[in-house]
Amino acid sequence: MLTSALKNLIKTYPNFPRQGVMFRDLSPLFSDPKTYSSVIKSMASADFFEAANAIIAIDARGFLLGSGIALEIGKPMVLARKPGKLPGDLISKSYNLEYGENALSIQKEELTAHSKYAIVDDLLATGGTVKCVSDIIKSQGLEIIGLSVVIELTKFTGKSKFDFPVISQVSY
Amino acid sequence: MLTSALKNLIKTYPNFPRQGVMFRDLSPLFSDPKTYSSVIKSMASADFFEAANAIIAIDARGFLLGSGIALEIGKPMVLARKPGKLPGDLISKSYNLEYGENALSIQKEELTAHSKYAIVDDLLATGGTVKCVSDIIKSQGLEIIGLSVVIELTKFTGKSKFDFPVISQVSY
Repeated sequence: MLTSALKNLIKTYPNFPRQGVMFRDLSPLFSDPKTYSSVIKSMASADFFEAANAIIAIDARGFLLGSGIALEIGKPMVLARKPGKLPGDLISKSYNLEYGENALSIQKEELTAHSKYAIVDDLLATGGTVKCVSDIIKSQGLEIIGLSVVIELTKFTGKSKFDFPVISQVSY
Repeated sequence: MLTSALKNLIKTYPNFPRQGVMFRDLSPLFSDPKTYSSVIKSMASADFFEAANAIIAIDARGFLLGSGIALEIGKPMVLARKPGKLPGDLISKSYNLEYGENALSIQKEELTAHSKYAIVDDLLATGGTVKCVSDIIKSQGLEIIGLSVVIELTKFTGKSKFDFPVISQVSY
């Protein structure tokens, strides 16, 4: 039922942000309080959040879901941010995106208190973004134990990059 | 008490992202579940959220607070995003920042259902970002009835730009 509510809300824009990309827009979810709240509760119910010491929310749409989950489960949220956004000592890696290239950084001191992390983002396509976060975490001898996204684009087989469980609310 | 908890958590980085800027970093708030939850509840208790039909969260740190407030009060959240991020018919304006220049966009159809909006962001400095959102809303004959931020930097007198109430949790 949540899946069909989500499919009704998600709007598809062909050729955005560039030719050949089918953009799945979650904006209407955030302006539908009932479904937004249900999605947060459903995402937060994944087993791996119980085992996680903290969640990692990915800049910027992951913030819209990670914060809801962090508040729901009462666990710390660590931010993975784009270049130039975070001050202090950073661990940074670059990655290839479905369209373009980018980099992500996490503050070193935000990782000192915890060892097991669950990642939250809006959408899984090729998995480049999540792989980047996972590489940052593993480079510190720490562990990713799960990924929760709203949308999975199955044709990109992003899941196959990971040795941890992936849970999505809807797939295309 | 919340103010002192916040002041203990917020870390100050001089000369970030550029020379002369004192950057107030909220990252440690998001990894402190108890204070994060208290801040969301305190922000959400502002009168104007009761009268608002929807909230507007500003990309990207505003997402970390707007989503919590939207879920807390059960009202729609509309996104004000940076260039190239939102698909569809947009209303866009550019603005001057404490450091640099940028633009924000809101999807036209996200504004059709509501007339009264409360803005949420992490920090108020010169008020350029909020003024930009307010100009977008007013250009559609709609109304801003309040602004809620965690941090206000009083020396920039951003508040004086607005004819609506501004509530902050801590000021410097």
